[in-house]
Amino acid sequence: MANDFQYNDDDSKACGGYLPSTSPLDRRSFLAGAAAGAAALALPRWAVAAEGLLAPNPSAAFDDDLSPIRSEIMRRHDETIKRLQTWIRQPSIAAEYRGMNEGCELTMQMLREAGFQQVTKVPTDGQPGIFATLDAGAPKTLGLYFMYDVKQVDPSEWSSPPWDAALVDKSGFGKVVIGRGAVNQKGPEAAFIAALHAIRGSGRKLPVNLILVAEGEEEIGSPHFPQIVRKPEVQQALRRCFGIFMPSATQAGDGQVTMTLGAKGVVELELVSSGEKWGRGPRTDVHSSNKARLDSPAWHLVQALNTLVSADGNDPAIEGFASRARPLSPAEKSMIATAAQRMHEDAVKRSLGVEHWVHDASFQESLEMLMGRPTVNIEGLVGGYTGPGGKTILPHRAVAKIDMRLVPDMTAAEALAALKAHLAKHGFGDIEVNMTGGYDPTSTPADASLIRAQTAVYKRGGIDPVLLPRNAGSWPGYVFTGEPLKLPAGHFGLGHGSGAHAPDEYYVIESSNPKVQGMDGAVFSFVEYLFEVAHTA
Amino acid sequence: MANDFQYNDDDSKACGGYLPSTSPLDRRSFLAGAAAGAAALALPRWAVAAEGLLAPNPSAAFDDDLSPIRSEIMRRHDETIKRLQTWIRQPSIAAEYRGMNEGCELTMQMLREAGFQQVTKVPTDGQPGIFATLDAGAPKTLGLYFMYDVKQVDPSEWSSPPWDAALVDKSGFGKVVIGRGAVNQKGPEAAFIAALHAIRGSGRKLPVNLILVAEGEEEIGSPHFPQIVRKPEVQQALRRCFGIFMPSATQAGDGQVTMTLGAKGVVELELVSSGEKWGRGPRTDVHSSNKARLDSPAWHLVQALNTLVSADGNDPAIEGFASRARPLSPAEKSMIATAAQRMHEDAVKRSLGVEHWVHDASFQESLEMLMGRPTVNIEGLVGGYTGPGGKTILPHRAVAKIDMRLVPDMTAAEALAALKAHLAKHGFGDIEVNMTGGYDPTSTPADASLIRAQTAVYKRGGIDPVLLPRNAGSWPGYVFTGEPLKLPAGHFGLGHGSGAHAPDEYYVIESSNPKVQGMDGAVFSFVEYLFEVAHTA
Repeated sequence: MANDFQYNDDDSKACGGYLPSTSPLDRRSFLAGAAAGAAALALPRWAVAAEGLLAPNPSAAFDDDLSPIRSEIMRRHDETIKRLQTWIRQPSIAAEYRGMNEGCELTMQMLREAGFQQVTKVPTDGQPGIFATLDAGAPKTLGLYFMYDVKQVDPSEWSSPPWDAALVDKSGFGKVVIGRGAVNQKGPEAAFIAALHAIRGSGRKLPVNLILVAEGEEEIGSPHFPQIVRKPEVQQALRRCFGIFMPSATQAGDGQVTMTLGAKGVVELELVSSGEKWGRGPRTDVHSSNKARLDSPAWHLVQALNTLVSADGNDPAIEGFASRARPLSPAEKSMIATAAQRMHEDAVKRSLGVEHWVHDASFQESLEMLMGRPTVNIEGLVGGYTGPGGKTILPHRAVAKIDMRLVPDMTAAEALAALKAHLAKHGFGDIEVNMTGGYDPTSTPADASLIRAQTAVYKRGGIDPVLLPRNAGSWPGYVFTGEPLKLPAGHFGLGHGSGAHAPDEYYVIESSNPKVQGMDGAVFSFVEYLFEVAHTA
Repeated sequence: MANDFQYNDDDSKACGGYLPSTSPLDRRSFLAGAAAGAAALALPRWAVAAEGLLAPNPSAAFDDDLSPIRSEIMRRHDETIKRLQTWIRQPSIAAEYRGMNEGCELTMQMLREAGFQQVTKVPTDGQPGIFATLDAGAPKTLGLYFMYDVKQVDPSEWSSPPWDAALVDKSGFGKVVIGRGAVNQKGPEAAFIAALHAIRGSGRKLPVNLILVAEGEEEIGSPHFPQIVRKPEVQQALRRCFGIFMPSATQAGDGQVTMTLGAKGVVELELVSSGEKWGRGPRTDVHSSNKARLDSPAWHLVQALNTLVSADGNDPAIEGFASRARPLSPAEKSMIATAAQRMHEDAVKRSLGVEHWVHDASFQESLEMLMGRPTVNIEGLVGGYTGPGGKTILPHRAVAKIDMRLVPDMTAAEALAALKAHLAKHGFGDIEVNMTGGYDPTSTPADASLIRAQTAVYKRGGIDPVLLPRNAGSWPGYVFTGEPLKLPAGHFGLGHGSGAHAPDEYYVIESSNPKVQGMDGAVFSFVEYLFEVAHTA
């Protein structure tokens, strides 16, 4: 899922780790059950039968018969794939100012065709956003968060060109579409749009009204997203919402789903130590022999950095930084304990390439730290000579790229202020603190009706989602969950993909694993979700 | 001068700073004196008369009449320039394995043509060196150190292509040759070779025998130079030497000469902190959210670095590192005090782009630190994401590029061992210490006859050289000054050039400043030097 997170390019890791894959026994039992038509509650509602049709699970929590919509999804299969391919073939990369207006216009056109009556481009100080509404005359209104931008690519790293959106057989998964944005986020968003087409195409009325906000700068840290969401007409529309969600491919490769009740906040920044600002040491790189008589901005940076964390490098030591950090509640700890039981520590460690958690903590403790601890991390160090071998210079400038992760009730602004005050207090007030992105933590109560509706849909589909209090990655949900809207917010959607921010990003179109949904299953999960939301108290 | 130092790409800085430039009054007085033919001792022996001829200063310390040789130098002017151009047009770059054998062969051919009877290529584990001897049947033997390699170039940065060796008018200097190696070191070396041609061409016998060792890896830290110098036949030959010197363009832009009685040693190394070696933290870059539960090799490096210096970043704090550092003697301090009087602190600070010395020291103290203090310097920091903006990773590896400067009686091997022991003792034994180059300090007594001969030649030429106890940069003179040879060693030669290791490296061919020697003056300075050495007790 969290391939939709700017600050989280590998969701399975940010969520805490990989879930156990289906054991042969589990799968055999499941197939036996499916063949017998029994144990309906354990059956995925969207199980794929041998001929590739969706096998409906009759035990819906509501009375609507969704099978005509399901048929319509299948009828429109090719149209849906084609729409996704068209979208992928339009690159929109904010970091490169590439195809932004085209991507915005194309997205707006797709929303209009899907039934949104009002679709408005929202100018910002950066790339434009979109505000769209679909009034179905329904009692309930659901919010939607879309992004139309994608991450940069290095085409030489791809086995299939990133803008071809080719359909390829991928071992263990079936037919997938390969392309930048396939899973992050055009695939799941296209599946949601297809759900609207299918509902309308089958002659049904949409069970909820929709309010949609979209941005084109998700991949650069959503710097202007508040300008979109905080427009009065957008705020007014969002206030009516039951909650807001982003379409996502939440299934891991084994079909398992992890739900998170929020995300950490983040501040990304550069610490820049320079002779210019310091007034000591050189203002240009000079011969290194001068170290004997000149102060070194690089040593100055090292010494400033050293004050930011504990002696083992693990605990933030910035005064006041975490003073508003809320400890994990007993309920959150219990949620993590349950999740830890269902996860495989060995697989997680293997995938991360690690042997030890900090302080040699247990797996459960590692998850508690992942969800509950603020962090100060070095993303990168760059200063002076960085090529092969050495070069005898005393550099006039050195930079540390830092990210700080925040838990409720910390805020990005307060974290930044604490850092600046700390540096000043310790004699490093000359070091520049240049924030490049970030935002507050986001949090949604476990008992929010949005979360209950999502859980209900997953469970009826035979999936018992792992529930975690927080994603250790970050997304700009604070604009919804914070003041003044205080909306529940999260991600939803079946389906699977991977490779966000990486080469060969893919999204499964036709799944070869009965536990993993392909495109049609993903589309149907959104249909179910909309009807579930309409019926949730 | 010290463009010939691998570890010293701007000699004027490494030597302590710029000397006062000639004031208009000084110059006017000088010209008046010259016109009157008076004040002979204050007259440069090689003053250039209006018609470009060398005006001899008659007050030689020995009886030889060198004027026929001077005439021969002028007669061979074009031949000398052409030889230098041919040499520059043959790039030899050890770091790029470019033109090494060709450069070695060309140098050997030039030595043979200059009268060396025996010229041998000396294979090493790296690039070949040269051992050459010229037996003049003289009582005294002088050693010579040559390099035939040059630094890399980025041709796009040059106003005249680096391998064209074009003759260009340079404002304030006259006609210069521009090309890589022009001053570092082919220009001065070619001037020395021209001196041999001129002596022979004028029918004179060389007043000293010569032993020459050359290397092709000076610009990569002379890693195999000991393999050349320590060959038994080379050692045996060098043992006969009075001392050893490298031809150099020791004049600053204003004509002043600075002499140094040795140089600091140096160790260049990389400190590499990695999850692989540490056994903690990741073995590949992982999503930065994992900092909450994973150790960070980048923080580990920062914390290790922090232990290497004092709290202000200025004093080495590596246990045992400087225990054999010899404090400056009263004589050395006095030498520095005299030099400080003759130097312009403001100009030095301006050229370095600095406002303060460490601890706000005085200029004299800054020079004492420059010559007398061992250093631990950060040349570069590189780890994780180093591009524009940020990238949310927890890097598995971070590197600090360090140089450590050593004073007598420290050694490179002991300094390296002290660093490793220190890291291990402080819990950083996993951090790799990869030495990439370096060698011991080198030192020559002020009263060595080699130094006395050099000083005598300069003074007779009207130049009162600034004498400093040590160059803060480094050169591999330790192979000569250390055990078992214990030879005096240094640099000598009039002439001026600059831009070693930088674009538009140049060497003055025909000087427009009477205080700065052009090529012919440089050649004649070597002639004088050879006769002076022959007469020095």
